[in-house]
Parts: sequence; C-alpha cells; structure tokens
Amino acid sequence: MKYKEKPLILITNDDGIKAGGLVALVEVAKRIGDVVVVVPNESYSAMSHAITVKHPLYVKEIKQKKGVALYKVNGTPVDCIKLAINKLLDRTPDVVVSGINHGSNSSVSIHYSGTMGAAREGAINGIPSVGFSLLSHSYDADFTYAKPYIKKILKHVISNGLPIGTYLNVNIPDIKGLKDVKVCRQARGKWVEELIEREDPRNRKYYWLTGYFKNFEPEATDTDEWALEHGFVSVVPCTIDTTDCKYYKELKDKEDELQV
Amino acid sequence: MKYKEKPLILITNDDGIKAGGLVALVEVAKRIGDVVVVVPNESYSAMSHAITVKHPLYVKEIKQKKGVALYKVNGTPVDCIKLAINKLLDRTPDVVVSGINHGSNSSVSIHYSGTMGAAREGAINGIPSVGFSLLSHSYDADFTYAKPYIKKILKHVISNGLPIGTYLNVNIPDIKGLKDVKVCRQARGKWVEELIEREDPRNRKYYWLTGYFKNFEPEATDTDEWALEHGFVSVVPCTIDTTDCKYYKELKDKEDELQV
Repeated sequence: MKYKEKPLILITNDDGIKAGGLVALVEVAKRIGDVVVVVPNESYSAMSHAITVKHPLYVKEIKQKKGVALYKVNGTPVDCIKLAINKLLDRTPDVVVSGINHGSNSSVSIHYSGTMGAAREGAINGIPSVGFSLLSHSYDADFTYAKPYIKKILKHVISNGLPIGTYLNVNIPDIKGLKDVKVCRQARGKWVEELIEREDPRNRKYYWLTGYFKNFEPEATDTDEWALEHGFVSVVPCTIDTTDCKYYKELKDKEDELQV
Repeated sequence: MKYKEKPLILITNDDGIKAGGLVALVEVAKRIGDVVVVVPNESYSAMSHAITVKHPLYVKEIKQKKGVALYKVNGTPVDCIKLAINKLLDRTPDVVVSGINHGSNSSVSIHYSGTMGAAREGAINGIPSVGFSLLSHSYDADFTYAKPYIKKILKHVISNGLPIGTYLNVNIPDIKGLKDVKVCRQARGKWVEELIEREDPRNRKYYWLTGYFKNFEPEATDTDEWALEHGFVSVVPCTIDTTDCKYYKELKDKEDELQV
C-alpha cells in the first residue's frame, strides 16, 4: 500500500505518559509515520475495557515534540481511543497501537489489561490495532531488543491491514537473544489468587489481590505461553466477536429446552 | 444431575445492592438453590473486566435475609467474584450469575459491561456463568416478565453445565409479550460516539462520553440484536478465548513475513 501522506499512528497505553514502554514505542513509530499520543494522565493498569461514565473527561495538550503530538486525558485507555478518534484527530488513524506495556498480557491476562482494552477499542472502530507488552514489570525495563520486532510487526500491519474486528496481542520476552516471531493461539490458563489478608489500625480486615498465572496446557506448543517460555515473540490474532461458535451450534440444537 | 445438597448460586452485579435487578435475580435464585450475593458497594457500570490493584479491598457482611448471604465489597464486579471464590465461599459455586443489569449488554456492549465481566471471570475459573440484562435503564424497571425466562435458563445451566471457558450473555427486551428464547451470535456493531462538549466555570473544555448503538448487519436474523428487536430473549454463548481462529490460520501462513 502506498501512502500519499505518511500513515497516521495513534498511540495509547495504560502506564501513563512517563512510562519507558511508551517512549520506546513512540521512538519506533515516528520513523514509520505521523504519531499522535493520547494517554491516561496516570497509571490505569488492570482497567480492562472500562470507560468513564461518572465524571467528565478533560484533555490536556502537551507541547509537541519533534512532530509527535501529545495529549493527556483523565480517563482510561479506552476513553483515550474514543476521544482521539471522535474529537482530537482530523482523519482516521491507519493503526491504533497500545503499549509497550510493562508486564505480560498473554493468555487470559488480555481480559484484565487496559493496554489490550485500547487495542480492542481500535478494532471495534474498524481500525487495524495492536497491543505490545514486554515481560518485565520493572519501571526501568530495557526495550532495546523488543524494538526491531515492534517495528517489523507495525509495518506489516500498516501495509497489510487486519480483518475488521481483528486485533493483535503481541508479547515479548524480556531477554537479549529473542528468537523468531510466532503466530499463536491464546493459552488456556488462569490467575490463581493468593489474597493477602491484613488488618488496618481499626482492626478491620482488608485484602490485596495477588497471585500467579497457571498455564493449563504447558505441553501445547501452539500457545502464546509456550512461545514466550521458549524465547519467541508471541502474536495472537484476537477477535472482538465473543461468540463461542462451537457451543453456539450445540445449544442451538437444544433451543427448545430453553423455552418457558 | 442430582444434588445431595442444594446448588450454590453466587450472584453479583454492577449496579450495587439496592438495584431492582439484583432483588429480582435473588428472588428467582433462592427458589433454586443456596444463594450468596457479593456485590460492589456502589454502582460500577462500564467497568468491564477491571480489577482493583491500587487500593485494598474491604468486605462487609450484611445481615442474612431468609437464607441469602449478602456481602458488599469496595471493588469491581470481577473483584467480587475473585473474593467470593477464594475467600468467602466454603465450596465452589455451581453457577455464577451476574445482573440483572439495568440496560442492554448485547453485541459489543459486552466488552464495556461490568455485569458481563463478572460472568467472564466465573468462566475463567471454570464455573458455569451467566450474565442477565434487561433492556431498560430505568431505576424502577419492571422485571416481572423477565423472571420466568431467567429461572428457566438458570435451571438449564445448573442441570447441564457449560463447557469450560464458556459463559452466556442473556438479554431480555423490556416488554410484556416476550417471545421465545433464541440462541444467537454476537451482532457486528459499535457505539457511535457523540461526545458532549462543555465548559467549566474556569473556561476549561470537558467531555461526556455518550452515543448510540449502530447495528452493522440489521438484516442478519441470527444475531442478538435482531432477536431483541423482534421481542425474543437472546442467549449468546460466549468464550473466554479471544483467538481469531480464521485469521490465525491466515497469519500463520505468512509467519515468515513477520521475522526480523
């Protein structure tokens, strides 16, 4: 695909404007196209696909830096995408990119992730969309080795597009010797909760959510979890259609059992 | 399936403990099994699959009413499910039920919905789960005509179970003469944003998110939107697996194009 003008790249994240992952993503993106960054004004981790309905949204335009436009919003990553597409941009972006998240969004973590919520919102709006995550929660995470992969995938998506309603969940191990890019399916697994129980000074019990991820199919070699454990960059093509096609047929055949 | 003891029904919602939809759901559920209600202590609409990571969670036990245990949590619907399963319940619930939401969660609205987030969390934990929504945002909505359908579907799910990772998105028109239950697929559509722009007393612009839903395939007769528009109760079997199986194969064939 040839562009008369440079491709327009809309970027958001859920870690806020100072996150190293955002800086690294902008560095890659501005070599490919015009970049507009619209991000939450604070960390909005684990906000999933939430939108803000209880308070109004304010947009603050930050001084442009080397052709990159920057906006901050007092809302979620999905709010940022909605505001950008419907108010801040003068044309539809060629791609929505979210990240680079500090921490994995593989397997079912996609459901909790604000980073992936923003990518999903791009896809709902018919825009090719990608979420990137590095497998390091460190504030000082090093994105050097991830960058060539991000550039390659981003250019591929801009050139080839994605089917309407499809978005990519890209996770990258935090290692130097990254292997190939592997197209995967979402692994079956879940977060095993280990609620931390404490008492406050008024003797009231309180809980912190925490836990560890458990892969239910560690032997399967076609999952994102397997790829990441073996040093590959995982790319899961995701759909906004939640319909369980297999069980749909099964339940459709038993539809009469559901009648009142 | 025969129970030695009554089935255990875990209920949550995203409208809080006083919502008429919750009261109606509990009325149906307590005739079927033992009921434990764990709900946010305030309205958590549009919170999607968000979890609370920035502050600790407090649980308040409310006095039991007629064999129904009630808890309030200062968190999201998904937090409520996590706390219930891992801390409050002494056995795994036979079914997780969320709602009855005041307002539709059909088509892509499932992604924004806290009600459906809770049902999805149940499914992630391997528990048959259902979210119910009535197509009325009214605080005083009348759930009378919805109740027999909810009872029927709930009993069916408890007796037959659901595949691991599958949950049901049930939407019910707000009318007296409801037709049959229709097993559907998720309609393609999106929320068309109409951001309301205003100025605060300090002359700063602010925005409210609002809009209307647009069905991209109004002629298709197998979607939830079609069913609801024609007076049917829609049941969409949903999966926690976001993988786009069709595009997965296509992109897998082009995997070499993604290599650095």
